[in-house]
Amino acid sequence: MANGVPRVCSGPLGEFEIIARYFAPLATNPAALALLDDAAVLAVPEGQELVLTCDTIIEGIHFLSADPPDSIGHKALAVNLSDLAAKGARPHAYLLSLALPELPGAAWLEGFTEGLQRLQEQSGIDLIGGDTSAIPGPLTISITALGLVPQGEAVLRRGALAGDRLYASGSIGDAALGLKLLREPRLAADWGLSGEEGDFLVERYRRPSARVALALPLRQYAHAAIDVSDGLAGDAAKLCKASGVGAAIEVARVPLSSAAAKAVACAPALLAKLLSAGDDYEILAAIGAAHAQAFAAAAQRHEQRVTAIGSIVPGDGQVALIDEGGRALELGRKGFAHF
Amino acid sequence: MANGVPRVCSGPLGEFEIIARYFAPLATNPAALALLDDAAVLAVPEGQELVLTCDTIIEGIHFLSADPPDSIGHKALAVNLSDLAAKGARPHAYLLSLALPELPGAAWLEGFTEGLQRLQEQSGIDLIGGDTSAIPGPLTISITALGLVPQGEAVLRRGALAGDRLYASGSIGDAALGLKLLREPRLAADWGLSGEEGDFLVERYRRPSARVALALPLRQYAHAAIDVSDGLAGDAAKLCKASGVGAAIEVARVPLSSAAAKAVACAPALLAKLLSAGDDYEILAAIGAAHAQAFAAAAQRHEQRVTAIGSIVPGDGQVALIDEGGRALELGRKGFAHF
Repeated sequence: MANGVPRVCSGPLGEFEIIARYFAPLATNPAALALLDDAAVLAVPEGQELVLTCDTIIEGIHFLSADPPDSIGHKALAVNLSDLAAKGARPHAYLLSLALPELPGAAWLEGFTEGLQRLQEQSGIDLIGGDTSAIPGPLTISITALGLVPQGEAVLRRGALAGDRLYASGSIGDAALGLKLLREPRLAADWGLSGEEGDFLVERYRRPSARVALALPLRQYAHAAIDVSDGLAGDAAKLCKASGVGAAIEVARVPLSSAAAKAVACAPALLAKLLSAGDDYEILAAIGAAHAQAFAAAAQRHEQRVTAIGSIVPGDGQVALIDEGGRALELGRKGFAHF
Repeated sequence: MANGVPRVCSGPLGEFEIIARYFAPLATNPAALALLDDAAVLAVPEGQELVLTCDTIIEGIHFLSADPPDSIGHKALAVNLSDLAAKGARPHAYLLSLALPELPGAAWLEGFTEGLQRLQEQSGIDLIGGDTSAIPGPLTISITALGLVPQGEAVLRRGALAGDRLYASGSIGDAALGLKLLREPRLAADWGLSGEEGDFLVERYRRPSARVALALPLRQYAHAAIDVSDGLAGDAAKLCKASGVGAAIEVARVPLSSAAAKAVACAPALLAKLLSAGDDYEILAAIGAAHAQAFAAAAQRHEQRVTAIGSIVPGDGQVALIDEGGRALELGRKGFAHF
């Protein structure tokens, strides 16, 4: 790519051919200089601020070697779009750093760039630069994504106030179940899942939704928000800690997909894992109680499902998980425990 | 860091302690949100454009496992600053993506961040975000650097005109010799180098200069410029191709350090390698003949050495290397060959 250090050894397609054939078509924004320069040159519209985020996915850690290449492209970009959405930012441009164990073949490149292209079109983001290297190790994809917000309107982790309602987007825990199924396919039977339900969970692991359409409702109504990538409970604690508050989450209200709900019905111990597992790429947001209905309505207008799962309370980073009897549960390594 | 996916397993120091203790002190720019959020929020001054570049360095490829940690921090940032300088941009902010094979100890972290810190202070750039991951592979450091230029004033690869003088900064080939010495220390004797001269070349490999101070003279006078990271001849060809011109480089004028000149005097076949070796991180610029003297004077005022090494000629990406007899040389795999 632009500013590429062409360390990748020659193969059927060289690095420059790969960039020209597969990546330049993703880089139609003039800022990209057609990926022919050392750098991108980007004008930021007056009155706008940049939101910048950087997330890396690594083969064997964040995706599996057998994952379809388009899902790898999708995921690399989606995990970054998720961070932009949580900040209320409109996706604008990204740089892609690829560390390749070997020069990929045409089929892989077509799939990978198709995954990127589709999500670019859905989200309005453009490739503007990057680099490629050879790595004596696993395929490593690092993206730096830039979003735009009107000056001073970025939604931060800090800002939640006691009394706010806590909302989660989409559904929680699907990706963790999908990953378990990929590793142990026989679990589908234990969990009473149809083939379709199992496929749905695997898809949620491989192609997480980036809640780009929630950016505007968040900017309008959220006091604070965070991208749920490391588990609902842990990420709620980060938001609370940054805001100097606590949270009470009603476990029964946490949104589960029908597939996840079925699995939990068969194996109730799963629920605790789902609340602390990663890879959700949903949004958790604190909304002033007076605006809760307006937020939910705005989300719906943007075709996004959001669910009130609890409240912000006074505190210092503590997140209480409350069962249906109103008792606080502790999330241990092996599941819930009553205090 | 900000938006970190804390996949790194626990060790003597956890990921969050590492960020708080070692990286947060590098991130004093308010845009960084103290590395406590999912993203950075950056205002771009009115009338300025962003120059964005992204370069990755990987253990065993771009640096050696035995390199001092401060040199690794230095190099990760310097290779990006070099790209910004070539575009005439003032360093502004960067995001750091670290993929760690294991949680590093305090000594390594102190060295690594000291290397970053020193170069931050020298160049005026600030850490504003990033992420950390565990990698089942080599230490991989990806930086996305942002620079500022007044709107429309970025120096590009395209823009060189036939008749322009071609300038190189600093000295060419030192890093390639330094790497050879690290791999085969006995070569120092073959090349007639003192210990000090050998150390100088190794330092040039480990701690490349980023020619940040050349940004302003380039913006004032350059028609086109490129960062020499993949070898003088190849990078000159890229500049020429982007500009739709050719170049004639007078080999005898290519600036060599006294250590490199000594090595070449002992082993003349080295010269061809130095012109095509990587890791120089010098700047190659095309300057209108009428401004050549003013450019050289401006560079000198900024304490930067620049050397006229040839001319831009009509062509389509061809770079002729001319010997002292005026003959064109061909840069083969094994050295020069006359046409």
